[in-house]
Amino acid sequence: MISVREKVRFVETDLMGVVHHTNYLRWFEMARIEYLRQVGILLNDLMAEDIVLPVTDVECKYRASAKFDDYILIEAELVEVSKVKMVFTHQVFREYDEALLATGRTQNAFTTRQGKIIRLPDKYFEKLYKSCR
Amino acid sequence: MISVREKVRFVETDLMGVVHHTNYLRWFEMARIEYLRQVGILLNDLMAEDIVLPVTDVECKYRASAKFDDYILIEAELVEVSKVKMVFTHQVFREYDEALLATGRTQNAFTTRQGKIIRLPDKYFEKLYKSCR
Amino acid sequence: MISVREKVRFVETDLMGVVHHTNYLRWFEMARIEYLRQVGILLNDLMAEDIVLPVTDVECKYRASAKFDDYILIEAELVEVSKVKMVFTHQVFREYDEALLATGRTQNAFTTRQGKIIRLPDKYFEKLYKSCR
Amino acid sequence: MISVREKVRFVETDLMGVVHHTNYLRWFEMARIEYLRQVGILLNDLMAEDIVLPVTDVECKYRASAKFDDYILIEAELVEVSKVKMVFTHQVFREYDEALLATGRTQNAFTTRQGKIIRLPDKYFEKLYKSCR
Repeated sequence: MISVREKVRFVETDLMGVVHHTNYLRWFEMARIEYLRQVGILLNDLMAEDIVLPVTDVECKYRASAKFDDYILIEAELVEVSKVKMVFTHQVFREYDEALLATGRTQNAFTTRQGKIIRLPDKYFEKLYKSCR
Repeated sequence: MISVREKVRFVETDLMGVVHHTNYLRWFEMARIEYLRQVGILLNDLMAEDIVLPVTDVECKYRASAKFDDYILIEAELVEVSKVKMVFTHQVFREYDEALLATGRTQNAFTTRQGKIIRLPDKYFEKLYKSCR
Repeated sequence: MISVREKVRFVETDLMGVVHHTNYLRWFEMARIEYLRQVGILLNDLMAEDIVLPVTDVECKYRASAKFDDYILIEAELVEVSKVKMVFTHQVFREYDEALLATGRTQNAFTTRQGKIIRLPDKYFEKLYKSCR
Repeated sequence: MISVREKVRFVETDLMGVVHHTNYLRWFEMARIEYLRQVGILLNDLMAEDIVLPVTDVECKYRASAKFDDYILIEAELVEVSKVKMVFTHQVFREYDEALLATGRTQNAFTTRQGKIIRLPDKYFEKLYKSCR
């Protein structure tokens, strides 16, 4: 499990005075990318080999609203991985009072840029697999 | 059920060459807002009475990628409504070949701007209820 | 000169209750892309030939705020074009009272995806040149 | 002059493989907000007194493209301030080679949420004025 610390941006808020709900899913993605980096996989390296990671499934439950200027902690944990997909769970906490703001789950497939499904090469799969409880 | 027609914007794409997955949820929201308008409920009127509609739950499954300049059809159907929440299902189609790109489900609560849960006033509830099969 | 009609999206607003100022520049881009289409140039065709159009310069002056649910008209006019750049002026109007909300000017260069400056091929240049008063 | 360090987000890129040009203006805003914080002015405090800061004018020149995963440094410097407006200049650098990516200038007015022009209260004006060379 890894955690990324961010500050809520002004532009992430909307007319209702809180963060727009879709931005939590953008935060999840940032944490996933950081998770991959920490196990030794760079998105740029994958893309250089024509491997992309389209999201095939997302879920998010919202408990409380993040607000402008809040510090937040975004967690990513790999809970399932195979040669054809990976599944993460995510949590977002507000830093100052540790309130849980949102929980989520995302699934990515492995494809070429043209959308052809591929099997993740061993050198990447092994890094993910070892990191997954 | 209502349907909104949009063209995919350049800014909605990302480095992988297709629409970023979070934008589908923004499209769902546009269709929900249009659904409300068609049954006679304007978001601006709700907000003027200090009623906001925070999303409490989203799910989305992605089948195929929307691309820059595609025309898309975004559907919203109200499948459940009570005084404290409403649930929509959504579908996004690519217009030219009617391919189903994504399906989703969203739940909104009714609260004040301060986040206090409220019961939706009858004048609004009745419009929603009547529209819901 | 061409004009594109759009409705302000909820997600385009921010905490201050109006459209975030950067979205006007996204609207300008939508109108530029539509201008190119109307003179017979598709961005997808340019990209298929490894021609991209990085913005090198933008200016925008804001007169009044666009609000959620407003219909807006976004204008693009090509005011200068050469083999190495094109310059557009833009205006955004609110539809219902024709209020001028913003004016702008943007300059794009022509480069490869790798960022190498190129001269726009004649078949494209001529279409642009003819359209420019 | 203050500087904010950020990492380019995946969602900030577009189909052309680099950061969408409008995101630089969002970064400028983040640096302005941080500048205000460092001189002792919180946007949330201003808004609590019904003071908002609409952007009335932006300019940006782009020299080189920020890419996904780059670390960037975003600078904000207050160059002019009065009771009715403030003017900042901005620069964005890529961290690893100190390349200048973009320069800009922004002007904000002081108004109520309803858009009425106001004079910035002394307690805020003095902090800004002292910080301005």
